[in-house]
Amino acid sequence: MTITPPALSVFETLESEVRSYCRGWPAVFDRAQGARLTDEDGHSYLDFFAGAGSLNYGHNNPVLKRALIDYIERDGITHGLDMATTAKRAFLETFQNVILRPRDLPYKVMFPGPTGTNAVESALKLARKVKGRESVVSFTNAFHGMSLGSLAVTGNAFKRAGAGIPLVHGTPMPFDNYFDGQVPDFLWFERLLEDQGSGLNKPAAVIVETVQGEGGINVARAEWLRALQSLCHRQDMLLIVDDIQMGCGRTGAFFSFEEAGITPDIVTLSKSISGYGMPMALCLFKPELDIWEPGEHNGTFRGNNPAFVTAAAALDAYWADGQMEKQTVARGEQVEQGLLAICDENPASGGHFRGRGLVWGLEFPDPARASAVCARAFELGLLLETSGPRSEVVKLLPPLTITPDELDEGLRTLARCVRETA
Amino acid sequence: MTITPPALSVFETLESEVRSYCRGWPAVFDRAQGARLTDEDGHSYLDFFAGAGSLNYGHNNPVLKRALIDYIERDGITHGLDMATTAKRAFLETFQNVILRPRDLPYKVMFPGPTGTNAVESALKLARKVKGRESVVSFTNAFHGMSLGSLAVTGNAFKRAGAGIPLVHGTPMPFDNYFDGQVPDFLWFERLLEDQGSGLNKPAAVIVETVQGEGGINVARAEWLRALQSLCHRQDMLLIVDDIQMGCGRTGAFFSFEEAGITPDIVTLSKSISGYGMPMALCLFKPELDIWEPGEHNGTFRGNNPAFVTAAAALDAYWADGQMEKQTVARGEQVEQGLLAICDENPASGGHFRGRGLVWGLEFPDPARASAVCARAFELGLLLETSGPRSEVVKLLPPLTITPDELDEGLRTLARCVRETA
Amino acid sequence: MTITPPALSVFETLESEVRSYCRGWPAVFDRAQGARLTDEDGHSYLDFFAGAGSLNYGHNNPVLKRALIDYIERDGITHGLDMATTAKRAFLETFQNVILRPRDLPYKVMFPGPTGTNAVESALKLARKVKGRESVVSFTNAFHGMSLGSLAVTGNAFKRAGAGIPLVHGTPMPFDNYFDGQVPDFLWFERLLEDQGSGLNKPAAVIVETVQGEGGINVARAEWLRALQSLCHRQDMLLIVDDIQMGCGRTGAFFSFEEAGITPDIVTLSKSISGYGMPMALCLFKPELDIWEPGEHNGTFRGNNPAFVTAAAALDAYWADGQMEKQTVARGEQVEQGLLAICDENPASGGHFRGRGLVWGLEFPDPARASAVCARAFELGLLLETSGPRSEVVKLLPPLTITPDELDEGLRTLARCVRETA
Amino acid sequence: MTITPPALSVFETLESEVRSYCRGWPAVFDRAQGARLTDEDGHSYLDFFAGAGSLNYGHNNPVLKRALIDYIERDGITHGLDMATTAKRAFLETFQNVILRPRDLPYKVMFPGPTGTNAVESALKLARKVKGRESVVSFTNAFHGMSLGSLAVTGNAFKRAGAGIPLVHGTPMPFDNYFDGQVPDFLWFERLLEDQGSGLNKPAAVIVETVQGEGGINVARAEWLRALQSLCHRQDMLLIVDDIQMGCGRTGAFFSFEEAGITPDIVTLSKSISGYGMPMALCLFKPELDIWEPGEHNGTFRGNNPAFVTAAAALDAYWADGQMEKQTVARGEQVEQGLLAICDENPASGGHFRGRGLVWGLEFPDPARASAVCARAFELGLLLETSGPRSEVVKLLPPLTITPDELDEGLRTLARCVRETA
Repeated sequence: MTITPPALSVFETLESEVRSYCRGWPAVFDRAQGARLTDEDGHSYLDFFAGAGSLNYGHNNPVLKRALIDYIERDGITHGLDMATTAKRAFLETFQNVILRPRDLPYKVMFPGPTGTNAVESALKLARKVKGRESVVSFTNAFHGMSLGSLAVTGNAFKRAGAGIPLVHGTPMPFDNYFDGQVPDFLWFERLLEDQGSGLNKPAAVIVETVQGEGGINVARAEWLRALQSLCHRQDMLLIVDDIQMGCGRTGAFFSFEEAGITPDIVTLSKSISGYGMPMALCLFKPELDIWEPGEHNGTFRGNNPAFVTAAAALDAYWADGQMEKQTVARGEQVEQGLLAICDENPASGGHFRGRGLVWGLEFPDPARASAVCARAFELGLLLETSGPRSEVVKLLPPLTITPDELDEGLRTLARCVRETA
Repeated sequence: MTITPPALSVFETLESEVRSYCRGWPAVFDRAQGARLTDEDGHSYLDFFAGAGSLNYGHNNPVLKRALIDYIERDGITHGLDMATTAKRAFLETFQNVILRPRDLPYKVMFPGPTGTNAVESALKLARKVKGRESVVSFTNAFHGMSLGSLAVTGNAFKRAGAGIPLVHGTPMPFDNYFDGQVPDFLWFERLLEDQGSGLNKPAAVIVETVQGEGGINVARAEWLRALQSLCHRQDMLLIVDDIQMGCGRTGAFFSFEEAGITPDIVTLSKSISGYGMPMALCLFKPELDIWEPGEHNGTFRGNNPAFVTAAAALDAYWADGQMEKQTVARGEQVEQGLLAICDENPASGGHFRGRGLVWGLEFPDPARASAVCARAFELGLLLETSGPRSEVVKLLPPLTITPDELDEGLRTLARCVRETA
Repeated sequence: MTITPPALSVFETLESEVRSYCRGWPAVFDRAQGARLTDEDGHSYLDFFAGAGSLNYGHNNPVLKRALIDYIERDGITHGLDMATTAKRAFLETFQNVILRPRDLPYKVMFPGPTGTNAVESALKLARKVKGRESVVSFTNAFHGMSLGSLAVTGNAFKRAGAGIPLVHGTPMPFDNYFDGQVPDFLWFERLLEDQGSGLNKPAAVIVETVQGEGGINVARAEWLRALQSLCHRQDMLLIVDDIQMGCGRTGAFFSFEEAGITPDIVTLSKSISGYGMPMALCLFKPELDIWEPGEHNGTFRGNNPAFVTAAAALDAYWADGQMEKQTVARGEQVEQGLLAICDENPASGGHFRGRGLVWGLEFPDPARASAVCARAFELGLLLETSGPRSEVVKLLPPLTITPDELDEGLRTLARCVRETA
Repeated sequence: MTITPPALSVFETLESEVRSYCRGWPAVFDRAQGARLTDEDGHSYLDFFAGAGSLNYGHNNPVLKRALIDYIERDGITHGLDMATTAKRAFLETFQNVILRPRDLPYKVMFPGPTGTNAVESALKLARKVKGRESVVSFTNAFHGMSLGSLAVTGNAFKRAGAGIPLVHGTPMPFDNYFDGQVPDFLWFERLLEDQGSGLNKPAAVIVETVQGEGGINVARAEWLRALQSLCHRQDMLLIVDDIQMGCGRTGAFFSFEEAGITPDIVTLSKSISGYGMPMALCLFKPELDIWEPGEHNGTFRGNNPAFVTAAAALDAYWADGQMEKQTVARGEQVEQGLLAICDENPASGGHFRGRGLVWGLEFPDPARASAVCARAFELGLLLETSGPRSEVVKLLPPLTITPDELDEGLRTLARCVRETA
C-alpha cells in the first residue's frame, strides 16, 4: 500500500517563508461576521485577536458593510490620491465633529499613506523637521512598524536585525514600570537631558504607546504619561503618541491617552480607523507644527475612499455618544474577572495579567506555556496570539463589539487551555 | 456693501498643508467610471493620470466591481493579516497560472504590506540580508517611496530633505541616457566596482525602474537593462526592478522588464496589482533568496482580501491571453502620433516626447509651460500631471482600458492646451 | 593725548579662534623644569595641570632629557613609520620587562599613531572587527577624543556638536555613582542587554575610564569596575579601558585598573607614556584579539622614535620598583588633607572633593566660582584648570614628581583662591 | 644534530600583526643622516621613501638638529597644549612671513593635533559646521587618514573595511584622468549637483589631493584643479586641499596647489611641516571660515613645541627664497630622465611613469612585478615602496635635499631591479 502525501498548498509552495500567523492557525479562512470566522471546512472560530486590533467593530460589521456596498454600487471614487472627494470631506467633517471638537483637540489631519508605519514615518519626519534634530527617544519593547524609520524606534531585536543596516538615531528609555518600581520614573532620561556631558543626542521627539501591544501588554500609568508630557515640554521635545493599536476605543476612550488628560503634539492612528479592516491611517498634529510643504510626503494609497466611507460610518455609529466607551469598560471588567479566576485556579502556572479596556495580557514565566495555550485554543476554536519579547504573554484583543456571552465563551475556553497545558 | 468671503472648506481648515494634487485640481470629486471622473457639480473629467498608475483598468471597472461586491456581500474575510484565506489562495493560484508560469518566472511571492514603499522596504531588507552588505545603488531621478529606506534610494532633493536625517547607504548612478550618449553605459559604475581604491561601498543590490515615472518618463533601453543585469551578475549584486508604476501592463507586457528579456532577482509590484485602486503590494524574488525567518517582516494590512479578489479577477479578465498587451501597444502608437503632431505643430515650444506602452512624457524646456498646460487642461476637463525633477514633463498615464475615442479626445485637448499656453 | 592700543599678538591675529587654554592663561611661556614654568617676563608658575596629564614626570625631566639629547646627537632614527628600530626594540623590551611581565599582562602592543584619539580609534576598530557589531557603549561624561570615532563615544554636547554630523553607533550608560546610589549598578545596562525587546543594538564593546578626568574627576569604585568586567564577559562584549589620562601612574599603579584587579581586553595609553610630553600612544590587547591584517590601520607618525627613547628611560627610572606608586599614594594623601582643610574652612562654598592618586577635583555648586578660582590662581602663579560638564570642578593634576613642598605651596595658593572668591 | 631556530624578535612576539613596513624591510634601523639610514649590522640604505614624505629635508638635518638640541638644552617648553609659547610665536611669525605673506594667502592657522588625520578631521568638521551639511565629496583612490572621519573619504576598500561600521556621508567622484580622457572633466559631478533629482546629498565640501600619493601617484592637471575650484565656487561647496603629503615643497612650490593658481578654502599640512620628522600638523583656512568656538576641537599634543622649533628653522633655512623650489624641479627632471631610460630599456615590462617635483610613480601592469622590484631594491640597499589600489606602482619619494649623485645612484639601482625582475 502506498501513502500519497497530501499535496502542498500554494501557501507552502508559492508564498514566502516570511508568513507567520498562518503557521499557528493552520486553516483556510473563508468568511467572518462579528467576532467569528469560518474556515473552508465550516469550522467556526471565536476571534480574540481582531486583526491585531484592526477590527474593533468586528468582522464585516453590517452598518459599515451597508455604507460600503452603497458607495461601491454608486461608483464613488475608489482611489483618490490626495484629491478632494465627497467621501473624504464626509470623513473629515465627521472626524472633526464626532472626535476632535468634543475633546477640544485642535489637530490638523494628514493622510500619510494607508498603514501604521506610513503614519509613524510621517510623524518622525515632521518632528525632525520641526525641531531640526535627528534623534528620537522610544521605549523598551516599543513597536512602531517595519519600514526603516519606524523600525529604528522599535525594540524587538529580531525585527531590528531584519533591517540589514545598523539602526541609528533612536535611543530606548525604560517604559513605565520597567524596573518594578525600583527606580523613580524618568530618573535616567531626565538626567541625560539635563547633563550637558551625558552623550545623549538631544531628541527631537519622544514616541510612546500608552499600552504596548506587541511589547507584551505593558500598561503605562496615567501619571507616568503626564510626567512624560511634562518632561517633553520642559525639554523642548515633541510628544508623539502612537495610538495605532490602542486608539479607536481599544482602551475605552477613543484615544487611549484621554484617560491621562494629556494632549500629545502628534498622534498616529491606523488599524481600526477605517472600521472595516481596510488600510487607512492618519497622522494628527497641533496646527503650529503643520510646516509641511505641499507634497513633501506623499504616497499612492493615501486616498482609499471606501475606507473613508466606513470610517465615517463607524464614527457616526459608535462615537456620537459615550456608549461605546462605557461598554468597553464593562467588557474589560468582565475580562479582568475571567483572568483573575484563571490565575486563582492555576496558581502553579505563575501567570499574572494586566490590561486596560479590551486589551489584556496573561503572562507566563515560561514562554512555551503561552505558546501551548494558544495552540490548544486554536484546536478549540479560539484565536489567540502571544506577544512580548519572548512571546511569553497571551494577548486578549477581542472586537469591542463582542457580546458578553461570546466573551464569556472565550474566557472559558482560555481557562480550559491553561488547565490543559499545566 | 460687504463681501462675504466664501467659507473655507474642511480641506483647507482641517487637512494638513502637505496635500498636493487637490491644489492643482480644485474640485471635489464624487464618482468615477472607466476613464472619467465626475465632480460634485456634475463636471466630467477625462483621466490621463489614472491614480498615478493605480487604475490601469479604469475607475470602478465593472468586472472587478461585481466580484468585489459579491465578496463583501457574502462576508468574505476582509482583513486577514497573513492568514491563509480562500481569497488569498485564489489570488496566488491565479497569479501563478496567469502570470508567473507562462513567463517561466520562478518567483516566491511575499505580501509586504499594501503600499509600494512597503514592497521596496522589504526588497531592500532582503537584499541586505542575503548579501550581508548595507549599500544599495539607485539611479538619478529614481522614485521608490517615502519611508526612510525607500527615500534613501529616491532622487528628488525636496522629498529627501523631508527625511530630517541624512539619508545614507545609497549611491546614485546615471540612468540610461543621462549623458545623451556622451558616455559609455555603466562606465563609471563598473570602474568604481572594479577599482579597489574607488571608495564605493560594495552594494548589496541595484534598484531600478525600467521607465522612471516620477523622474520624468525616462525610458531605459532594453540593451541597457540587459547590460545592467549582466553587471549585477558579474559583480555579485542583486538586481531589483521596482515595477510598482510600470508593471501590471503599463508598458505593454505584464512586467515592464519582459521586453528586455531579463529576470530580476527581486521585483516589487503595487499600484494596479489590485486592479481596483485598493491598497495592495507584492514583493517577488527568486526562491533561493527566500531566507526570511517567519515574521521577520510583517504589517497589519498585508491581507487586504477584497484587493486579492479584484486582483485575481483582473488577472483572469485581462491577462489570460495576449490581448491586453497588444491593445496597449496599439494605444501607445496612437499617443505617439498625437504627441508627434503636437510637437510638429508647436516647434517653438521646444517640446519633445518619449514613452513606452501607455506611459508618455511631453517635456518643455520651461517648467512653467508644463504647469500651465496642466492647469489649462483641468479647465478643459482633462486631468494631467507633471513629473521630472523640475516638474517640466507633462505625463500621460491614461487607463489601459481607455477607448481610442477617449484617447483621441484627450490628445486633442492636450494639443489645444499646448497651443493656448504658447 | 592719544592712547596707542597694544599691538595684537600673532596669536590673536593669525591663530584660529579655536584656541582655548591660552585664553585663561594669558602669558607667553618660555621655559619649564619639573613642576614650574617660566614666562617671557620671567614670572614663574607652579603647574597643577601637567599638560593635561602628559607630564607625569615633570617638565623636561633631566633623566629623560639626557637620553633624548644623546639620541638626537648620535643621529638615531627620528621618524620610523612602523619600521623596526633600535629605539623601538628597546622600548618594547623595557615595556615588556618593566610593565607587562611583572603584572602578568599578556598584551600585544600596537602603535596606532601618536595621539590618544588614534589609540581610541584603533581600539574601536579592532573591537568592531572582532565582534562583527557596530555599537559601542560609553559612559556619561566620558571623554575619548576629537576624531569622529572617538567623539561618538564622548559625552560633552558642545564637543559632539562640533562633528557636524549626527554621531551614532554609541550609547551612553550611567557611570559609577551617577545616581548617588539611588539605583543598583548596571541595572539599566544589564536589563537592556537581557531584554530581547529593549531596542539596544548589541554592543561590540564597552569603553570606560576608571577616573573621568575631563568629565569632572569622577572616580569609579573598584567593585563597579569588576562588575563591569563581569557583565562584559557574560554578555560577550569587549572591555576597553581608556587609560590615556589615568594610566602611567596617575592614580598610583602604572595602570589605573590594577587596583580593581581587572584585565581589560583592550587598553589605550598615551599622554605620559613618552614621559617627556612628546606625542606617543599605544593600544594594548589580548593576543587572541590580534586579528589585524598588516597595514589595516596605519599612520605616518607611529614611529616617533625620540619618544620611544624617553619612554623607555622613564619606565627604567620610575617603574623598575614600587617606589613611584608609593610616592604617588603619599602625595595623594597630602592633597586630600589639603582639600579637606579647604572645604572645612569654606563650608559656605558648598565645595566637595574627590580623587585618587594624584588626580583630584574640587567641585563647586556654581561653575562661576570654579572659574574664578582658576583665574585667581593664575594671578598668583598657579596653573589650574576646570573640568566637568559645566566646568564646575577645579582639577588638580600636578606632576607625580612634584615635591611635598611644592604641593604644599600649591594647596596653600588654592586655599587662598577659594577664600578670595567667596 | 638539533637545529636551534633563531629566537623570534620582540617585534614578532610582542608587536601587533598590524605592522607592515617592517615586513618588507626586514632590518633593524639604528641611525640616519640625510638620505641614508644605517641598520644595526652596519648596512647602509639609500632612502627613496623619506618617511612617506615626512622627511623632505632628510633625516636628522643638521640645521634643524642644532636648533632642536639648543631648545631642549635650555629647557624650552616641550609640551604646551595650546598655550602661547615663545616657540609657537616664532613658528607662527615665520610661517606668516616666509610662507603666507609672500604668496598672498590670507589663512588663519589652526593646530588640530599633531597628525595628518587630526588635520583632516578638523577640516571636515569645520566645513560641515560652516555649510550646515553632512556630505563631503572625495575622489577615487584618495587617501586622507585612518580615523573614522578621514577614513570615510578615503578610497581604499581594505582600509575602509577596517572601520567595522558602514562609512557614510562621503561620495567618491572620478579623479583627474580616471577615464583616460574619455569623459569630460566633472561631467558626472556637475550633472549630479545641478539635477534636483539626482539623489546626491548636497556636499558641504570637496576634499582633494593635487597628487594622490597612496592612490598611485595620480597627478591632477592644473586646469582640472582650476575647474574644480570653479565648480566649488558655483555650487557653494568648500574646497579642501589635503596637502599633507604633497605640501612642504614635495612638488616644487611650498604648496602643491600654487602651480594651478588656486586658493583652497581649507588646507591641511602635516608630514614634513616640522621638518625633522616630528609629529605636527596644521589646518589653514580663510579667515571668514574661522567660526570655531574656543575649545570646540582640541587635543593633547597640539603644542609639540620642539616641532615648532624645527619647523621654523626649516622654513627659514629653505623657504626664504626660491632656491628650494628650483632645485626640486631640477631634481625632478633628473628622475624623469632616469625613469624614461628605464622604460625605454624595458619595453616588455609595460611600465609607464608619472610624477611632479620629487614624487614619481613607475607603474607595472602586474602588481607582483612592482613588489619584486621593491624587494630586490631592499637587498641592494635602496628603500622603495609601492602604492596604488593594487600596489602596482613603485613610488619614488626621496628627500628634497638628496644630492644629484645620490639620486643617480638610486635610479641606477632601480634600473637594475627592473632588469633583474624581468
